[in-house]
Parts: sequence; structure tokens; C-alpha cells
Amino acid sequence: MKQSVGAKTLLYPTPVLVVGTYDAEDRPNLMTAAWGGICCSKPPCITVSLRAATYSHGNIMARQAFTVSVPSRRHIVEADYVGIFSGKDQDKWAATGLTPVHAEHVDAPYVEEFPLVVECRLVHTAELGLHTQFVGEVLDVKVEEDCLTAGKADIEKVDPCLFAPDNSAYYGIGELLGKAFSMGRDLAG
Amino acid sequence: MKQSVGAKTLLYPTPVLVVGTYDAEDRPNLMTAAWGGICCSKPPCITVSLRAATYSHGNIMARQAFTVSVPSRRHIVEADYVGIFSGKDQDKWAATGLTPVHAEHVDAPYVEEFPLVVECRLVHTAELGLHTQFVGEVLDVKVEEDCLTAGKADIEKVDPCLFAPDNSAYYGIGELLGKAFSMGRDLAG
Repeated sequence: MKQSVGAKTLLYPTPVLVVGTYDAEDRPNLMTAAWGGICCSKPPCITVSLRAATYSHGNIMARQAFTVSVPSRRHIVEADYVGIFSGKDQDKWAATGLTPVHAEHVDAPYVEEFPLVVECRLVHTAELGLHTQFVGEVLDVKVEEDCLTAGKADIEKVDPCLFAPDNSAYYGIGELLGKAFSMGRDLAG
Repeated sequence: MKQSVGAKTLLYPTPVLVVGTYDAEDRPNLMTAAWGGICCSKPPCITVSLRAATYSHGNIMARQAFTVSVPSRRHIVEADYVGIFSGKDQDKWAATGLTPVHAEHVDAPYVEEFPLVVECRLVHTAELGLHTQFVGEVLDVKVEEDCLTAGKADIEKVDPCLFAPDNSAYYGIGELLGKAFSMGRDLAG
């Protein structure tokens, strides 16, 4: 039996994405977003939604670019910190000890210590209400070499985190359930 | 040391979302999407991206509505099947044994057997390339009663799946890492 819990932002899982931008003085900033994901295959695009009040929002609008760095579980404390405070008030790099690297293809910084990095140029913006939805075309993805298996980013080595909105909690990834586009074939009529 | 793997759709984790729609003859259809997530807090909105070639794409455009049903790991075979085949060719309900239920607030069906259901009315559409990005305002969320803990959807009881694009594989959720907006506070300067 299902119970209505009302109109709310509830979907499992959501990702833990750390958005990198430069401000007007070329200072690198970071913020953590769970509202985002992949949104187009050709051209490859990802989306992140940010409130207009955030420092990063203005940075993306000005530079038309952002990166997303995906933390592994050993950096979840740093990712949580980056999501709580504003770059207007805190030097997040000093507080976390993380290292900014200028992206190769776009005018935005990424996090050296995180295993998976996506470089994006802004291609679409939608004002949805409290959040602005930014769509970025992926110009490059970079993966830590020790997280690659046969040239692919191995999710078990990247060891990403997920966010559970209704629980306000972070989880790790669990066990392999099976191969996609394969395990369901036997059900075909 | 990071290695470039090129411009591709690579981000971890992505969700396993089963989109429910009605066709022109009021037949319920399902498809599985991993390109999607939450995209606005007020009003609460979620996004899913579908190729124009899919049966569901036309259904959403016509009815201006869709649902997202989140499968637990015990239904991952059914969710994979639903993502492989088209409702133009297959009766997915008969093949999977899943049961369509007309949503309460929108003109779309959801999956009775899945523990978490989101009912959406279409509010924004973006043509990004191969995929159309649909944004739906959440009008209600329904949760299986035995997946609630103190009125909240308990992610460990919902037991959702995640999709790893570069691995073409599904994973379960893993262990609790900590509380969000909390574990990073001690880093503040």
C-alpha cells in the first residue's frame, strides 16, 4: 500500500557533484550539488541546478563554463563542507586542503584530488523557480589513471558517493547487480 | 595523474528511473531512463531526458504528464527489460507482470510494485540534441508504507539501483557514510 508524502524533492539516488567556477577576480570556487546528472548523449551534456543566491551561480553566468568533480568516499567530509558554506565567506581550498587545477578546455577550475572530472561549456539555462538549471556540453572527461579498467572509468575504483534527500545522508555504492541492456533480455515476448 | 577519456556521458552515479506514460489509445507504457534527477526545490521539479525516437517521448508531449517509478533491486531485471525494448513492439506489462496504476494527480500510469513514485506535470522542454530534456513539476510523491521510517522514505528500505554508464552495469546502494550538512562543519575556518 502506498502512502502520499506530498509534493517534494524526493528521488533515489541523487549524485554528489562538486561544481568548479572562477569568480570575477579569477579566484576558484567550489560548491556541492545533488540536483544534477547526465541529460543528453549527443552532444554529451550534463545538468546542474543552483540557486541564484549562490556564489557559483553568478560565476557560471559570467564565464559560461563550469566543471563537475566527483568525490570518492574518502573525500565526503570535504564535499559536505563545500556544500554547507559559501565561497563569499570562506576560503574553501584552504579549509579542505584541496587543489584547484585550471581545466584544459573551459574557463573553470577542477579538483585535483577527486577521481572523475567533467569539463563543460554552458549551452542552455532554464529558470525553474528557486533553482536555475544549467546545461553544459561536455568538452572532456578526465579520470584518475588508477581508476581506469581497460580504458573505462571503473565505478568501483572511482568509489563515488550518493545523496539521499529525504534522509539527509550520504551513502557509498554497493554491490554489482548485473549488466545493463542484458539481464532483462530473457523477459522479451 | 589524470587521463583524458574524451567528451562522453560519464558521471557517477546515475539513477534508474522508470518513466510511465499513456499513448494515444490510453495504453500505459514504460521506459527506463538514467539521464535524469531532481532539478528544482521550489516548485519541486525533476527532469528526465528521452530520445525523440522513443514511444514515451510522443506520449509525454501529447499528455504533458509523466510519472517516475523507482525500482528496488529486486526489480532490476524488469527495469532493464523495460529499457531495452520499445512499447511499440512489446507489451511490457504482460512480459514483466508489473501492474499499471493511474496516477492520482496527472494523466500517466505508475508501477504498483515499485516502492517510490513521483507524479509530474510537464513544465519545461529543452531540445538538446539526441535527447529532449523534460522537466516535470512534482505534484505528489508516493512511498510504499513499509519503506517509511518516521514518515520519511528510507533509502535503505526503498533499496534503489544505480546505473554506471562507462561500465554498463547496475549497482545497489552501499553503506551509510554520514549525515549531510553536518559531517563537513568542522572544516569551517
